[in-house]
Amino acid sequence: MTQPLRIAIAGLGTVGIGVIKMIRQNAALIEARTGRTVEITGISARSRDKDRGISLSGYNWEDNPVTLATRDDVDVFVELMGGSDGPAKAATEAALAAGKDVVTANKAMLALHGQPLAEQAEAAGQVLRFEAAVAGGIPVVKALTEGLAGNEITRVVGVMNGTCNYILTRMEATGQGYNVLFDECAQLGYLEADPNLDVGGIDAGHKLAILASIAFGTQVDFDAMELEGIQRITLEDIAQAADMGYKIKLLGVAQLTGRGLEQRMSPCLVPNTSPLGQLDGGTNMVVLEGNHVGQIVLRGAGAGEGPTASAVMSDIIDIARGTRLSTFGQPATSLTSATPARAVTPAPYYLRMKLMDKPGALAKVAAILGDCGVSIDRMRQYDHDDEAAPVLIVTHKTTRADIDAALAAFATTDVVHGAPVTLRIEEL
Amino acid sequence: MTQPLRIAIAGLGTVGIGVIKMIRQNAALIEARTGRTVEITGISARSRDKDRGISLSGYNWEDNPVTLATRDDVDVFVELMGGSDGPAKAATEAALAAGKDVVTANKAMLALHGQPLAEQAEAAGQVLRFEAAVAGGIPVVKALTEGLAGNEITRVVGVMNGTCNYILTRMEATGQGYNVLFDECAQLGYLEADPNLDVGGIDAGHKLAILASIAFGTQVDFDAMELEGIQRITLEDIAQAADMGYKIKLLGVAQLTGRGLEQRMSPCLVPNTSPLGQLDGGTNMVVLEGNHVGQIVLRGAGAGEGPTASAVMSDIIDIARGTRLSTFGQPATSLTSATPARAVTPAPYYLRMKLMDKPGALAKVAAILGDCGVSIDRMRQYDHDDEAAPVLIVTHKTTRADIDAALAAFATTDVVHGAPVTLRIEEL
Repeated sequence: MTQPLRIAIAGLGTVGIGVIKMIRQNAALIEARTGRTVEITGISARSRDKDRGISLSGYNWEDNPVTLATRDDVDVFVELMGGSDGPAKAATEAALAAGKDVVTANKAMLALHGQPLAEQAEAAGQVLRFEAAVAGGIPVVKALTEGLAGNEITRVVGVMNGTCNYILTRMEATGQGYNVLFDECAQLGYLEADPNLDVGGIDAGHKLAILASIAFGTQVDFDAMELEGIQRITLEDIAQAADMGYKIKLLGVAQLTGRGLEQRMSPCLVPNTSPLGQLDGGTNMVVLEGNHVGQIVLRGAGAGEGPTASAVMSDIIDIARGTRLSTFGQPATSLTSATPARAVTPAPYYLRMKLMDKPGALAKVAAILGDCGVSIDRMRQYDHDDEAAPVLIVTHKTTRADIDAALAAFATTDVVHGAPVTLRIEEL
Repeated sequence: MTQPLRIAIAGLGTVGIGVIKMIRQNAALIEARTGRTVEITGISARSRDKDRGISLSGYNWEDNPVTLATRDDVDVFVELMGGSDGPAKAATEAALAAGKDVVTANKAMLALHGQPLAEQAEAAGQVLRFEAAVAGGIPVVKALTEGLAGNEITRVVGVMNGTCNYILTRMEATGQGYNVLFDECAQLGYLEADPNLDVGGIDAGHKLAILASIAFGTQVDFDAMELEGIQRITLEDIAQAADMGYKIKLLGVAQLTGRGLEQRMSPCLVPNTSPLGQLDGGTNMVVLEGNHVGQIVLRGAGAGEGPTASAVMSDIIDIARGTRLSTFGQPATSLTSATPARAVTPAPYYLRMKLMDKPGALAKVAAILGDCGVSIDRMRQYDHDDEAAPVLIVTHKTTRADIDAALAAFATTDVVHGAPVTLRIEEL
């Protein structure tokens, strides 16, 4: 019989407790599948006394996660504290330096410090695994790193923040506005301590940056991501998108072209008949496209105790079975530094603006779009309210630069009221 | 630099040629991701002279796949000949005996001989991998064996034969009958040489039997599967299912309960709003349910050159990276022999029958159902054509045994014309 795999868990929130429950409940099958037992030799969290619903008295307690990470009786350090820096990063570095493998669910730490951590792990001959950092229970890191490893990945697309998708689908279903549903999410505990991590797209952006690194063999580069949250989406946008056969999703898109690496996390329109368009509520979905496999769609719970613990366990079991992979699917020192490219891939765009009630206003808008090389696919003008009329435009495929030029030109006229809402239409 | 991984490919049909193209086209990234090159040191097929669209002159040719499988300069034997027995099995056994790893896309061979082959591989310290045997490009074997390995799997559900799904969705979309679309598939080359493998559910059943073994730690047992094809599905069934909010799919379901292992591949109704209900055309979908992860849905191309080659490459790359797993996710000698259980899990059923135009006919049917413990959720009687009236019944949850008792009782009456169509409604 192989030796037990000894793990230490730092962070006893939802996910940490979920991992402990899973190891207890599924111990027999984990042993059958790995040929060894998984033993928890130590735990750590901010508060020792908090009631976490299960007994933790059987485990060695360490107040300091760094001390836990470097104990002699630990093979794998499981980092579930969160936070891009501070104790999570210090303990991860200490664990790697002490010759431990590390499993983490920490998307922020990987998105911001993934490259040096991967280099440290690989130089030390240790593995750093993070299935739980992206899309909860969906085994998407594994699918991308291993399952599609023979492919050149052409695009990664995903809805990876359940709270945003919940708000957007509830807006459509109930006719309640963004602010009402934001408050509901706050009450339900669906929001991060800093809600901008969710609704500002940052949390989902961290996940996309990690996937982009694996997909394209590039160093993780969250700072280069175009980020836009869902705060400006109105019921009007949702209704009008639905009218034209689209849904609005906080969509992550990453692709590598000759012009560089595009990474964006922003509200987009997707066809309502597409798998992403049919994704309601808090569920996550990731679409992976490869040059031989075509399109693979993965769907599942993106958060929560059980699903996230399942992803953590997948990494622990891989280590128990002896599977040793590079952090981002190829040696960290071979990852390239890609030039960021701002949305250069042409796409149709949706524009919603308010036109002042002046003669020739619509003609002026149309002329500006034409001058900027943006051609109109569909346009609707609705009834005036007060002195402004809502106008909705769907363009043919165009570049973001041409759209931006048109937006700048609108601002110099006296016919467009305020800043137009501009959403990319992502074709899938 | 690590040594090249030397592979031999037996079988140069669509998939074999796809693998060669992929190795050529993506050589640089495969090397980056594995740290070594993948070299084809030999090939074999039935006909050497056939034009396969690419030049094969650079590879050693062997007429006999067994000779190819045992060459000294081969590390991995890639079996893409197909057929459950004959040369595929002989060459696989020879490769394992000669100390080679084996990668295969052969679902029939694994469904019928997976247990002895796995035992042979593991006794020899070799790996036998088969991602391409199930659902083409979808990395479902990996998701189940590794991604969800910490879970007790509670159910596996899937649409895993693209041809059947194509026929069923085209019947609904075009109003053309089964026979017309069967002929269309034959012309398009969508059917196996023995079409019953497709429309009879056998091919999809092979895939389900393989997944069931991994999911439940049981020896693969295709012979115990309940099999029913799509040949009896009529436009009427499809229209009436749609009327009630369902789609008809050739659905595989495997679950292990206290009463044994249920495995069925049969036409079922699924809610048209569920991911499976929304699956149109030749695409495959597999739903995996685990006791912590909840429901994971995987979707992608289930066949074709690129997708199937992608799955073969995933296995080759795992081997190149040094990943060594048990064939079915735990040692073959530890797999249990499950008692087959015939559809004991209760479910609602759909019944379509023709009632003779006699007084009290409907009352008699209702009475029989009641006597058998089957309660009716919804019932519709349509206009008479000739002397029989179509009647459609959706039951509340009931067992297959109670349904069968009712069907037997109907046959003893003179009011039900012919054998009723009986389809299970699978809740997802």
